[in-house]
Amino acid sequence: MYDILKTINSPADVKKLNAEQLNALAADIREALFNRLTKFGGHFGPNFGIVETEIAMHYVFDSPRDKFVFDVSHQSYPHKMLTGRKAGYIEDEHFIEDSGYTNPDESEHDLFNVGHTSTSVSLATGLVKARDLKGEKYNVLALIGDGSLSGGEALEGLDFAGSEIHSNLIIIVNDNQQSIAEVHGGLYKNLDELRSTKGKAPNNFFKAFGLDYIYEENGNDIQSMIKVFERVKNIDHPVIVHINTQKGKGYKLAEENREAWHWCMPFDRETGKWHVEFPEETYTSLTTEYILNKAKQDKDFVFITPAMPNLFGLSPDVRKGMGPQYVDTGITEEHAIAFASGVAKAGGKPLVGTAATFIQRTYDQVSQDVCINNNPVTILLNYASLDGLTDVTHLGVFALSAFSNIPNLVVLAPTCKQEYLNMLNWSVDQKEHPVMILIPGNAVTSREADKDFSKLNTYKVEQSGEKVAILALGDFYQKGEELANQIEIQLGFKPTLINPRFANGVDEKLLKDLQKNHSLVITMEDGIIDGGFGQKVANFYSLTDMKVKTYGLKREFYDRYNPAELLKELGMTPEQIISDIKNLLQ
Amino acid sequence: MYDILKTINSPADVKKLNAEQLNALAADIREALFNRLTKFGGHFGPNFGIVETEIAMHYVFDSPRDKFVFDVSHQSYPHKMLTGRKAGYIEDEHFIEDSGYTNPDESEHDLFNVGHTSTSVSLATGLVKARDLKGEKYNVLALIGDGSLSGGEALEGLDFAGSEIHSNLIIIVNDNQQSIAEVHGGLYKNLDELRSTKGKAPNNFFKAFGLDYIYEENGNDIQSMIKVFERVKNIDHPVIVHINTQKGKGYKLAEENREAWHWCMPFDRETGKWHVEFPEETYTSLTTEYILNKAKQDKDFVFITPAMPNLFGLSPDVRKGMGPQYVDTGITEEHAIAFASGVAKAGGKPLVGTAATFIQRTYDQVSQDVCINNNPVTILLNYASLDGLTDVTHLGVFALSAFSNIPNLVVLAPTCKQEYLNMLNWSVDQKEHPVMILIPGNAVTSREADKDFSKLNTYKVEQSGEKVAILALGDFYQKGEELANQIEIQLGFKPTLINPRFANGVDEKLLKDLQKNHSLVITMEDGIIDGGFGQKVANFYSLTDMKVKTYGLKREFYDRYNPAELLKELGMTPEQIISDIKNLLQ
Repeated sequence: MYDILKTINSPADVKKLNAEQLNALAADIREALFNRLTKFGGHFGPNFGIVETEIAMHYVFDSPRDKFVFDVSHQSYPHKMLTGRKAGYIEDEHFIEDSGYTNPDESEHDLFNVGHTSTSVSLATGLVKARDLKGEKYNVLALIGDGSLSGGEALEGLDFAGSEIHSNLIIIVNDNQQSIAEVHGGLYKNLDELRSTKGKAPNNFFKAFGLDYIYEENGNDIQSMIKVFERVKNIDHPVIVHINTQKGKGYKLAEENREAWHWCMPFDRETGKWHVEFPEETYTSLTTEYILNKAKQDKDFVFITPAMPNLFGLSPDVRKGMGPQYVDTGITEEHAIAFASGVAKAGGKPLVGTAATFIQRTYDQVSQDVCINNNPVTILLNYASLDGLTDVTHLGVFALSAFSNIPNLVVLAPTCKQEYLNMLNWSVDQKEHPVMILIPGNAVTSREADKDFSKLNTYKVEQSGEKVAILALGDFYQKGEELANQIEIQLGFKPTLINPRFANGVDEKLLKDLQKNHSLVITMEDGIIDGGFGQKVANFYSLTDMKVKTYGLKREFYDRYNPAELLKELGMTPEQIISDIKNLLQ
Repeated sequence: MYDILKTINSPADVKKLNAEQLNALAADIREALFNRLTKFGGHFGPNFGIVETEIAMHYVFDSPRDKFVFDVSHQSYPHKMLTGRKAGYIEDEHFIEDSGYTNPDESEHDLFNVGHTSTSVSLATGLVKARDLKGEKYNVLALIGDGSLSGGEALEGLDFAGSEIHSNLIIIVNDNQQSIAEVHGGLYKNLDELRSTKGKAPNNFFKAFGLDYIYEENGNDIQSMIKVFERVKNIDHPVIVHINTQKGKGYKLAEENREAWHWCMPFDRETGKWHVEFPEETYTSLTTEYILNKAKQDKDFVFITPAMPNLFGLSPDVRKGMGPQYVDTGITEEHAIAFASGVAKAGGKPLVGTAATFIQRTYDQVSQDVCINNNPVTILLNYASLDGLTDVTHLGVFALSAFSNIPNLVVLAPTCKQEYLNMLNWSVDQKEHPVMILIPGNAVTSREADKDFSKLNTYKVEQSGEKVAILALGDFYQKGEELANQIEIQLGFKPTLINPRFANGVDEKLLKDLQKNHSLVITMEDGIIDGGFGQKVANFYSLTDMKVKTYGLKREFYDRYNPAELLKELGMTPEQIISDIKNLLQ
């Protein structure tokens, strides 16, 4: 097992291998990928498809002197194995040490910590600039997948590279004819044309940006890739190396269903079945159901996603049934939001869905295209929670702080199934406000909830009490409920429990009323405190005698944390909060 | 004067004119532009160049049934005159009523309030989508200038239109061979090629996105434009109409110096001289001087701007002298930030400059490409002040709230000339932190200042006193100073005056010390309160007896306000604050 891979401690060892050994190395790497991914999960298709290319990169170029920039970097596993980090793939106890993305803390062969798409070309042009200013000589390579090409940052970068860079830069376009879901956008038609003409089509997307261009059909053949890299090594201007590869290569199921095998949980290699059971009812399943029903009932409704249908349970079959009421814009968050504003302006009912971490791409579009125009766009965010994605590049705990201070935007934080669905219903149908809804990150719970949210910034008192008022926002409501119970049991009085619902508003009347028989207000939010909900409450009371204790996350880039441990570290277990309260009430 | 223009009360009146009258109308419109711009200022070149096109649009199409979307919308003045708003151009007392951008509150002929570039294609595709879902029939037109094409949002929109829209959409690309400064980016080489071949070049940027394409050389000839619009009217698929126009047409000075005449202050028509005298020393002149000296002294230094050299006094001559140490990326904010991260990673010293309102495009790049990687990029923001641009689409008062809650980012708010230059020097040379510097929005003042800012989040006590502590941030420091004086005069005690310097940090030790002999802390910041500086201070004290009064702007889209009046409305004059303090100290 791993006979060749075990001999590779650095890229220098790759250069010693003959053609046969290189092929054996590719096989070893795929076995190592299986080992990690069947047991630990991670990005499947992108890594299985890029094995040969990354071997050839290390064979021909000289990292870390030559600089490799991996777009999204979820296709860097083979590169990692070749740069001293094979243990993270072949020794199960070391899985946790490998981040699954390039990470400069792990290795000098990694330049950036990257987890959002479409960044590699711009980052690489920056390396080129500094290299040239310093008069240094080395190759700079950017690897970008075809799915990432549609992102504005990548397109801006290509345009810049095509006219402003006049020295060595090698941009490898890994064309596997697939984004996470199917590709969308006109440029993919041009990639098709280029593939079918072996790069000879006169109309060439890359050349239109002023870039030199080479096509290589055999992206999964190490010798072909070595040849093409030897041709461009030390080139004196930017060049596109457009390579044709197979996503998921080496695993039949993944080759056949590229969307399903983009990313995986631990699974059985024989059957492909994931070793995980999802509960029957999740916020995802509720969302899918809402979307499908709404589309059937209301011809003005349209669900829009920048390449994230899977987050909302919209499998290929299901979305096909929605016809023109389903729009995957491709990886184009900015466009998706502006597009939705246009839909709303012309009387449609747009619901835009993506992950909280990716909506960060659209601060300006949400502010300018949507909110200044006050167009009724609803933005639905998954993983806006510390219980969501825990990789430093995918944290959803900043979304509330980032977006909730945009004027006109109503940010809703539902606390249970009924409230979530009622908020969705209200939001998509109303015509007064842009709305952002934070999907709870915890398990589905059930409670009665209001249906109308048109009276903005009205909190709901779920339990009236005294002394302490708990404002437990969104999916932290359950923590607030538990805390309220514990206070009653341990401290002997009944606190007030409030469901704020509006994550960026202050219910001034209610907060004022609390002053009558409360001396302490506790805010709990599933995000960073800075810029978020609790600080608005603290500010409201800052000239009064009311004490306000704000619970939430610090302004930090957390990475691969355990959510329960993090809460403890932040002093947010019920025991810790009870202890705080005891002290504060004295 | 304005004989024909005076007869135009709606687009229906345009349709009645013969060829000769249409040309006379164009002449009238240019006279009206002169009338407003010589006296009131505004966007010059874009409007002078587009007169004929907008006349033809209204002649051929039927607004508001047909929908026009104007990118940036600073080229919509002729359209405004043709849609019932000529008074804003020919009657001086009505200038103020016209926003200078499309504005749905002004007219049903305006679809969106737009002031950032590169949005029209995406917004228009959204209109198309809703139109088609509703089964309605009308033309949707997007007008986009060539300068705006390089923005990611526009490129994403073109890519989407090229494959996902299968019905009427007319995208007019107004090619005047100029951004605000000269154009940058490979796609402009392709536009050149298309112009020189009259649209026949086989390599075609727009066709590479899958779009149909028509070229019209005579964009400043009404009859040619009528012909081309009649050809595409009611077309059943998306089409690019690439038109060649002359920026600033009709004013020799503007035709010859397109960069200087993009936008103007009131000026003398004969000489072109602006009726405004700038003080000799401004924060702009200080910045220019810093940039030029730094570039001379340090070969690793590079100034990067997404098409905003003018904000930093970098005229064409000056920037030419900087050689490779000056980079205009074109209108590509996202790329500019990622590019800077690459420069920093490879050992360069990047300083990125733009307007506060445009940096909003880069929330994700600042967070992911720069701050997660902790690369020492310095971002320099102009107009991050209520004293900056007052159009609703150009407000800089959100920047602090939007960006200051990103982990690892150090946000500096200088209070005077020395501090500003010292912060610039420190920031560009250090290698530890990404830094954002907010250029003061007021006149230059002078005071001694520290040179080292490596001890983060340390405030500076500028005057020690008692009872009241004033934390006056950045360019509001002068207001704090005045307030401190007035307190001493009117209330008879000496307050403490603090220059926080770090706009997103809390100096815990200092704030704790204040508790000894102060009962009230006042925060003053030049931005919205929500998510900003004062709320962090309020939060710090929220469990103590310290009262905190936060002064700043509300979370609102202010539009064309008078800064002094706004401050009064917000209760921020010294008299109002003194009155607050009297009440609070009782």
